[in-house]
Order: sequence, then structure tokens, then C-alpha cells
Amino acid sequence: MRVYLAGPEVFLPDALEIAAAKKRICAAHGLEGVFPLDPPPEAAAAAAERPYWLRIYLGNEAHLRSCAALIANLTPFRGPSADVGTVFELGFMRGLGRPVFGYSNAGADFLERTRAFLGPGVRRRGDGGFEDAEGMGLEDFGLADNLMVDGGIAAAGGAFERQETGGDRWRDLGAFARCVARLAQWSSASRA
Amino acid sequence: MRVYLAGPEVFLPDALEIAAAKKRICAAHGLEGVFPLDPPPEAAAAAAERPYWLRIYLGNEAHLRSCAALIANLTPFRGPSADVGTVFELGFMRGLGRPVFGYSNAGADFLERTRAFLGPGVRRRGDGGFEDAEGMGLEDFGLADNLMVDGGIAAAGGAFERQETGGDRWRDLGAFARCVARLAQWSSASRA
Repeated sequence: MRVYLAGPEVFLPDALEIAAAKKRICAAHGLEGVFPLDPPPEAAAAAAERPYWLRIYLGNEAHLRSCAALIANLTPFRGPSADVGTVFELGFMRGLGRPVFGYSNAGADFLERTRAFLGPGVRRRGDGGFEDAEGMGLEDFGLADNLMVDGGIAAAGGAFERQETGGDRWRDLGAFARCVARLAQWSSASRA
Repeated sequence: MRVYLAGPEVFLPDALEIAAAKKRICAAHGLEGVFPLDPPPEAAAAAAERPYWLRIYLGNEAHLRSCAALIANLTPFRGPSADVGTVFELGFMRGLGRPVFGYSNAGADFLERTRAFLGPGVRRRGDGGFEDAEGMGLEDFGLADNLMVDGGIAAAGGAFERQETGGDRWRDLGAFARCVARLAQWSSASRA
């Protein structure tokens, strides 16, 4: 089973080493990891007349379509939420009706992280909830991120593995490995 | 044509007034706006045994499936990027193969906004690009957001309307109205 490995680690200088480590973990569970930076499967994505960024997009979309499942690195990225590129891919695969799994190397709930991010701008509303300086409410459901992120994974029958890492949050693959094990289990069960 | 109106304005205390204003603009172009807070179209979403947040998710997903297109408010939200709940929905509708449009009330490019957000943590890489304090590169394609966001809209044949608003960035509907006009035009052209 081909599994798309979504995540903002594509922005790291050692992205390919991380990709190789993730693929080894997948292979140990009988899964084939597909990394966004892998050569795209469709020639269309390389159409020279299109701008570079659109060819990257089309390559990623072709990868997504070629995969039977997705595992997303949803560790918070430049703000309280996950990387939007990764979340787009999560929604895309849920739209295709394929299983989506996620992990995060931040243990704190979304509310706690959002409050920490906003700092003194957070106020109490009359109903006891919180709002930011622009009057926009803060989600308070004990989830890892916006409810569309957690909900998409739950609705797909996937799993969201969370841990507070003491190590390097972009290179600690403990929660990722648990995710792979869960997906492999799911895959065996769905074949049985 | 039913159009899903995605955006973080659901978090505002006057969300329903904004929804009504957006629906009026849609109606003036012969489109039916569907707001995330509208009663969900499927009884399944209200299944009492599911937690509240999951019922909201399932309601939104049912709304998305019932719509022929999506217009997303991609104004930056608590960080340099758009709201992840909105971006999930954008990816979902692109996965379903339906047209997606977006708008933003921030005029600055994604790179410029990300640099402003990161502040002194931004460094130059040897190749001339920028990276953050964790060594993660900054996208520099002259786009409005992460390339998956701009790319999804471009690949769907949609439009991304951007403006720097002098007014209230959550209530200025100028860019939204231009988006609706573009979608109505697209809809007429695709019927012809």
C-alpha cells in the first residue's frame, strides 16, 4: 500500500534524510512511503510551460492520487496550528475518501497552544469561553488542532498520535512510527 | 448552484450577520450561499452519541458534499497562513473535483508576511533564500499563501482575489464579492 507522507519537513535542509528514515519505518510494516519531494508520477506535472510552484503542486497532487492513504505531520508550524500545505493534503485525501492518519510532536491541546500564542490578547467571553483581540472565539474541545483537522481523521477511521517530544520536534519519529503501526493494522484488518 | 462559504468568520460573535451579507451577494449573482453554521443537511450529523465537535465536523462535511463549489476566506489567521479549518475544506472540495475560489483581505505576499511574523528569527541561506530559526525554508513564489493553497485554486480553474483592506479585515466583503462574480461567470461559461 502506497502511503503519502505529508508534512512541513520538506522545508528542512535534511528533508531527504528524514524522508528515507520515514520510508524505512513504512517498509518495516509492509507499506511504501511516498514523499512529496519524490519525482512526480505523472509527466503532466513537469509541463514546462507551467510555473515552477504549480508544477510542484501538480506533482504533489499526482502523488496523492497515486496513494491509498496519508500520514500527516501535524506538529504546529509557525503558529498554533499545523502547516496549511499539509492540512490541504489531509482534506484532499479525505475528499477522495481514503484513510488519513496524523501525528504531532506537541502534546498540549489546541486551546492551550492558541492561548500561549495569543498571549495577553486573549479575553474571557460572557459565556466563559475565550476570544482573541479581534473578538474571534477560541475552540475548546480538548483536541489537537482545529476540529476540521481532528474531525477529518476521526471520520476517516484514522488515528491522531500525539506526544510532547523532549527531542527535536521535526526529527523525532516516535509518534510517526506509532501512526504507521496503526495504519498497517488498519490495512490488515480491512483486507481480512 | 450551491456554494460553500468557508472561512474563520464562524468564530466572530456576529458570524450570522456576516453569513447573511455573503448570502445576499451570492443571491444577487444567482448563487445559493451555504454557511458552515447553517443547519446540517444530513440527520447523521446530529447523531446524539457522537461528541459535539464531531457532529460539527460531520455537518460541515455534509454541507461540503451538498455544494457544487467553494469560496474560501483565506485572510491570514493567527499566523502568516489562512485558517487550517478553511484550508482543510478547500482541499476536501478539490479532492471532490469541484471548483474552488479564494480571497484574502491581506495584500502582502506570503514571503513578506512570513518574514514579518518570524521577525529576527529569519536568516539568509547560502543559496539566497530565507530560513527560520529551526532551519526551515520560507516559500518565495510571490503567492498569497503556501503553494498547495494557491495551487489547488489554480488547478481547479478558480480565482484567488486579494486586496489590502483599509477597513475591517473580517467584515470587508469587497474581495469576496469579486470572487462571487468570478464564480458566477465561471458557472455561466460552464453551462454554455
